Amino acid sequence: MTIEQANHEAVRRILAGDPVLVDVIPASDAIPDLSDRTILHAGPPIGWDRMCGPLRGAVTGIAVFEGWAEDLDDAASKAAGGSFTFHPNHHFGAVGPMTGMTTRSQPLMVVENKAFGNRAYCAINEGLGKVMRFGGNDAEVLDRLSWIRESLGPALGRAIRESGGISLKPLIARGLTMGDEMHQRNVACSSLLLRQLAPLLARTSKDAGELVACLDFIGRNDQFFLNVAMAMGKALTDPARDIDGSCVVTAMCRNGTDFGIRVSGTGDRWFTAPVEMPAGIYFPGFSEKDANPDMGDSAIVETIGLGAFAMAAAPAVVGYIGAGRASEAAAFTRSMTEITAGPNPAWVIPAMDFAGVPTGIDIRLVVETGLAPIINTGIAHREPGVGQVGAGIVKAPLKCFQDALVTFAETMGVE
Amino acid sequence: MTIEQANHEAVRRILAGDPVLVDVIPASDAIPDLSDRTILHAGPPIGWDRMCGPLRGAVTGIAVFEGWAEDLDDAASKAAGGSFTFHPNHHFGAVGPMTGMTTRSQPLMVVENKAFGNRAYCAINEGLGKVMRFGGNDAEVLDRLSWIRESLGPALGRAIRESGGISLKPLIARGLTMGDEMHQRNVACSSLLLRQLAPLLARTSKDAGELVACLDFIGRNDQFFLNVAMAMGKALTDPARDIDGSCVVTAMCRNGTDFGIRVSGTGDRWFTAPVEMPAGIYFPGFSEKDANPDMGDSAIVETIGLGAFAMAAAPAVVGYIGAGRASEAAAFTRSMTEITAGPNPAWVIPAMDFAGVPTGIDIRLVVETGLAPIINTGIAHREPGVGQVGAGIVKAPLKCFQDALVTFAETMGVE
Repeated sequence: MTIEQANHEAVRRILAGDPVLVDVIPASDAIPDLSDRTILHAGPPIGWDRMCGPLRGAVTGIAVFEGWAEDLDDAASKAAGGSFTFHPNHHFGAVGPMTGMTTRSQPLMVVENKAFGNRAYCAINEGLGKVMRFGGNDAEVLDRLSWIRESLGPALGRAIRESGGISLKPLIARGLTMGDEMHQRNVACSSLLLRQLAPLLARTSKDAGELVACLDFIGRNDQFFLNVAMAMGKALTDPARDIDGSCVVTAMCRNGTDFGIRVSGTGDRWFTAPVEMPAGIYFPGFSEKDANPDMGDSAIVETIGLGAFAMAAAPAVVGYIGAGRASEAAAFTRSMTEITAGPNPAWVIPAMDFAGVPTGIDIRLVVETGLAPIINTGIAHREPGVGQVGAGIVKAPLKCFQDALVTFAETMGVE
Repeated sequence: MTIEQANHEAVRRILAGDPVLVDVIPASDAIPDLSDRTILHAGPPIGWDRMCGPLRGAVTGIAVFEGWAEDLDDAASKAAGGSFTFHPNHHFGAVGPMTGMTTRSQPLMVVENKAFGNRAYCAINEGLGKVMRFGGNDAEVLDRLSWIRESLGPALGRAIRESGGISLKPLIARGLTMGDEMHQRNVACSSLLLRQLAPLLARTSKDAGELVACLDFIGRNDQFFLNVAMAMGKALTDPARDIDGSCVVTAMCRNGTDFGIRVSGTGDRWFTAPVEMPAGIYFPGFSEKDANPDMGDSAIVETIGLGAFAMAAAPAVVGYIGAGRASEAAAFTRSMTEITAGPNPAWVIPAMDFAGVPTGIDIRLVVETGLAPIINTGIAHREPGVGQVGAGIVKAPLKCFQDALVTFAETMGVE
């Protein structure tokens, strides 16, 4: 099989995927290997010593939440003392936005790729502002996580099971006609999903007050769908892994210190480089000096042609992330066609006369053109416990792709 | 006051409006003058003898629904015999899509313009396909109207009152960033509205089964918001009526036979001309020969700069209505800037770098340029009882504007 054939097969598998939101279940059920005192995080592997501020903030918060520490200080010393085991979400079929905390008791959304039978997982989006994914860890943050675990997660699970599964491919197709790029703008898909879920939540509700709270919580969160899109991205890319001779990217992610990518033909190996600082717009009272470098598994959506790759569908997001004039949105999407295998005919952009989103990042094209994949991202405060301070655009470091290409060439017998 | 000053005042009033969805109440409460056996219809005044097929279909259906006739045949002979009184919705502060039936027992949505204190009314959208607004009148159609009267209307009224009022100006602003033009595409605003309504419906629900049915019904209807947008359009334009010396259009509507407009400086007078046939796309199994000429009060949304005037915000709708390439959407909006007083700074279009929608049709500019206002519209079957057969684009007849300009000139002392 030539490289072209192998890449064609990788992209074929991504495009052939049929992702369906099928359930919400505790992480311990979803991932039986997820043992006690194990903390999954966003990005490539990293130890406590190299973790950035918000990641440390989230780790200490989730340790308290799981009852593994008395308080944040206790959690920090336990973390430093080696009491917790850290692994990337990606090693367990999961993804998580920003800090990306995944632990045993959290409810995870389950996306099943019906075409290939694999499943992927992501926690439920906590809302905006001071939240754990941006490093928040105070009582308000932990109380919200408890409510998600006790009330929202089980309610969503009942509703989604009642639906028989919510097909995500047509939902994304629709969201692309409604200004979403599914990374920094999910207002359409969040709304469309709630339209489907609301009668199901009502039908399966066990408590009227809880129903109101669930509808209200989802309804107030324009980014609710992000975590669904991420689980979908993981479910779509996993079947494209481990194809000999393919140099298509199967994952991009960041832990706030390192950016990492995986490439189909080089298997589970991570190619990493120091993560870059997003260029963006800050919320009032914050500036670049407050910002942490880029983080999160959310770049899985760019890996499947959404996010910054689908910018042409979402002119309004260009201003939100400070990336230029709204009318220039299409230029971002066009530039990503230069480093991708081809368009996705199922996910098209009306303003580009229904051209498909550019899909399947080819590391050869990245290295040849010097065009780094672009990613729309939220910006966390560099200190633990603060939360989101802005949103922007970031480039994947070229070094990841250069290193991957060297290793890929070696696997192909090219020295 | 010069014409420019008068037009400036008319547009100022339209832009200063603050439309809020405040309630759903029976038409008999909303419009105390709406007497028994009176049927309000879309468009300018018309008698039974000149009514088109779908309008007759709706009239006979609503007469049976109200208990004024035994069956459709009985209703038709009573209508022909003068048993019913017909008036335009516009004469009673109301608007209605397509056939636009408004009678005493129907629940009406109430939009209050908080800046001016006036109220406007529109019935609740029935959904798609075979529905009364497209001339449907069988048992399925009437049963649905009964359910709307008995269940959905009161439930929506409770939810909206609980909200304290749902502000529509920011909702429209958001919808314009999500691909809606609020005439043939309302999927974003329908979804955003349901997000707000769902917890309120749950909180005020008196019956779990009814709650599920209401959430399901609204959730399945991408055009649910159209009727809200129409009541909003009426609420925004009414304060701009009757300004001496203003030649800004305050209403455009059609009854399937005549197109009619009202102009601020010429008061309540209608200027009419034969309505045109939409050019569009037909549902499978139907063609132009099935189509009825254009109808409905819905062109009130174009009167306030939405619908076809905001086409640039909704590239996906261009294909739906068969108006050309999606990438050409902005050309429609740009052409309408040539016949309007100015942009609406509160309702902007991201893809045009946040230019405001063109607002305030000036009849002088229409006549000078020969550019007729364009309208995005649904297409009804020409026979009673069938329903919607397509969607398209239609031009307002220039004759309405020419005649209005002659009369307007007379009011200004120009012979």
